[in-house]
Amino acid sequence: MPPSLKPQAQLHHHMINPRHISSRHNHQFKRWVSLLDSQGVKAHQQCLVSGAKLRMDLLHHSSASIHEILLPPSYEMPESLPLHTTGYLLSQELFHELDVFGTKEPLVICTIPSMPLCDLTQPPIGLEILCPIGDPGNLGALLRSCRVFGVSRVILLREAVHPFHPKVIRASSGAVFVQALSLGCSVAELHRPEVLQWICALDMNGDDVATTSWPPNVRLLIGEEGIGIPSLDFPQRLSIPQIHTSIPLNATVASSIALYAYRQQHPHSSHSAIS
Amino acid sequence: MPPSLKPQAQLHHHMINPRHISSRHNHQFKRWVSLLDSQGVKAHQQCLVSGAKLRMDLLHHSSASIHEILLPPSYEMPESLPLHTTGYLLSQELFHELDVFGTKEPLVICTIPSMPLCDLTQPPIGLEILCPIGDPGNLGALLRSCRVFGVSRVILLREAVHPFHPKVIRASSGAVFVQALSLGCSVAELHRPEVLQWICALDMNGDDVATTSWPPNVRLLIGEEGIGIPSLDFPQRLSIPQIHTSIPLNATVASSIALYAYRQQHPHSSHSAIS
Repeated sequence: MPPSLKPQAQLHHHMINPRHISSRHNHQFKRWVSLLDSQGVKAHQQCLVSGAKLRMDLLHHSSASIHEILLPPSYEMPESLPLHTTGYLLSQELFHELDVFGTKEPLVICTIPSMPLCDLTQPPIGLEILCPIGDPGNLGALLRSCRVFGVSRVILLREAVHPFHPKVIRASSGAVFVQALSLGCSVAELHRPEVLQWICALDMNGDDVATTSWPPNVRLLIGEEGIGIPSLDFPQRLSIPQIHTSIPLNATVASSIALYAYRQQHPHSSHSAIS
Repeated sequence: MPPSLKPQAQLHHHMINPRHISSRHNHQFKRWVSLLDSQGVKAHQQCLVSGAKLRMDLLHHSSASIHEILLPPSYEMPESLPLHTTGYLLSQELFHELDVFGTKEPLVICTIPSMPLCDLTQPPIGLEILCPIGDPGNLGALLRSCRVFGVSRVILLREAVHPFHPKVIRASSGAVFVQALSLGCSVAELHRPEVLQWICALDMNGDDVATTSWPPNVRLLIGEEGIGIPSLDFPQRLSIPQIHTSIPLNATVASSIALYAYRQQHPHSSHSAIS
C-alpha cells in the first residue's frame, strides 16, 4: 500500500467501527458526563464541544486537540477526522444525556489549551482584562467581545466560571478556542500594592470611558455580576455614562462597551495585529 | 373602628392567615406553574417575580400590579403589602417547583403592564429598537441597556421571547418594569416599503456606528441570535468596527454598543429626560 493512502485507511477503520457504548457504568461515559461541569473539566483537562459549526471550526483550527467523537445512534459518517480521534457510538439514552443543547450532532471531546498563570505584579501589555464573570452565558459573550476587540489576554480570576464549561464554549461561539487566556488570583488578593498598581477598574463612578485618555497598555478589572468592583484604592476608575442609573448594565455589556471605547482610541494595536 | 385603621386591619388579616396550598391539582398552583413559560404569561397576562430586591422594587414602583404573594413554608411575615394582595403559604415541594432560581424568598404574582401595538408605518420618535431577541438572558440584559441609554421604546418583534418570562425579568434586574415596551410584527413583515423606510439595521457591514451621523430619531433593527439581519434593502446599515471578524459579537452586546454610540452623539434626549 502506498504511504499516501495509509492515513485514509486508518481513519476509515476508526470511524466505520466506532465502539458501541450503552451502559452508564462505562468509565468513558462517566468521564464525559463529568465534563458537563467545571470540576470535571478541570480534573480531566478536557472539554465537550456541541454543535456542527463549532465542530467544523475545531477541525480546521485545532484538530490536534480533538481526541474523541461521540456519535448518536445510526448517525451517518461525519466529515473526515484527525487520525488520533477515537469514535464511539452511543445509545440514544446516553447520547441524549450528553447532548445538553439538543443539537443531535456528534459531540467532540477535546484537550483544553493550557492556560498559563499570570504574574499580576508585571505591567500589562496591550489591552488586558481581569475577569471574575461567574455566569457561563456572560463569560461566553464576553470572550466574543474580547476576540472582536483584540484583547491581548483575558486573565480569569478565581471567581470566574471555567472557560471550557460547555455553556461558556457555546455562548462564546468558539472564541474560547482562539482568545489568549491566562489564570489570575482571586478578587480578594488584588489589594496587594504590587498587583493593585497596574489595575484600572470599570465602575459605576469614574472617568468617562469615552473622554479619558486610555493608555495603550491597560489591565481593566471588570465587576462580578451582582457584586461589582471590590472597595480598593485603584490608580484609576473608569465608567460608562448612563441616563438612568438605578439599574446597572449587565457586566458583560459594560465590559464590552469599555473595550469598544478603548478601540476608539487605539484602533490598530500591534498585539491584536500579531494574533 | 376609625376608617384610618381599616387598611391596616385588612392587610393583617390577609397576611396572618395566608391560604395553605399543598396540592399540585390546585387551580391557582397550576396557573402559577404556567407562568414559568411564555405561553402561560401571555394567556394570563401575569408574571412571576423572584428575589428580594425585585420584590422591594415592585412594592415601591408598581405596587398596583402585585396581586398575589407566595410564601415558602414557615416564612416570616414579609414587609407590608398592598391591600389587594392575597397571600398563599405553599408546601415545600410546591414552593420549590415555582422558585426556579432557588431564592427561598417569597414569590410575587403581578399583572403585566399593557404593551401597545406599534404602528411601524409611522416614523420613529427618539431612539427606538426593533428587537427579535429570543434568548431570555440576552433580552433581559438588553432591556437594562435600553433603560441605561434612554431608549424611548423597545418594539418587540414576534420572534422575541416574552419580556415577562421569569428568566427575562431576572436578567433585566427589573428593567422590564420601567422600560417602555411595545409589540411589533414579525421579521418577515418588515419588507413592506412603508415599514422598511424607517428602519436602520445593525449589521456586520455598514457605516461605522462611531463616525456616522446618527439622526436623533432612529428605529434600529438588531439581529436575531445566530441569524442576524434579514436581506432587505434598508435605507441605512450601521456596523461596529471589529479587529477579528470571524466570530460576531453577541447580539445584546452589539446592540448595547450601538446604543452607547448613539448617546455619544445625543447625550441629552428629551425623551429620556421625560421618563
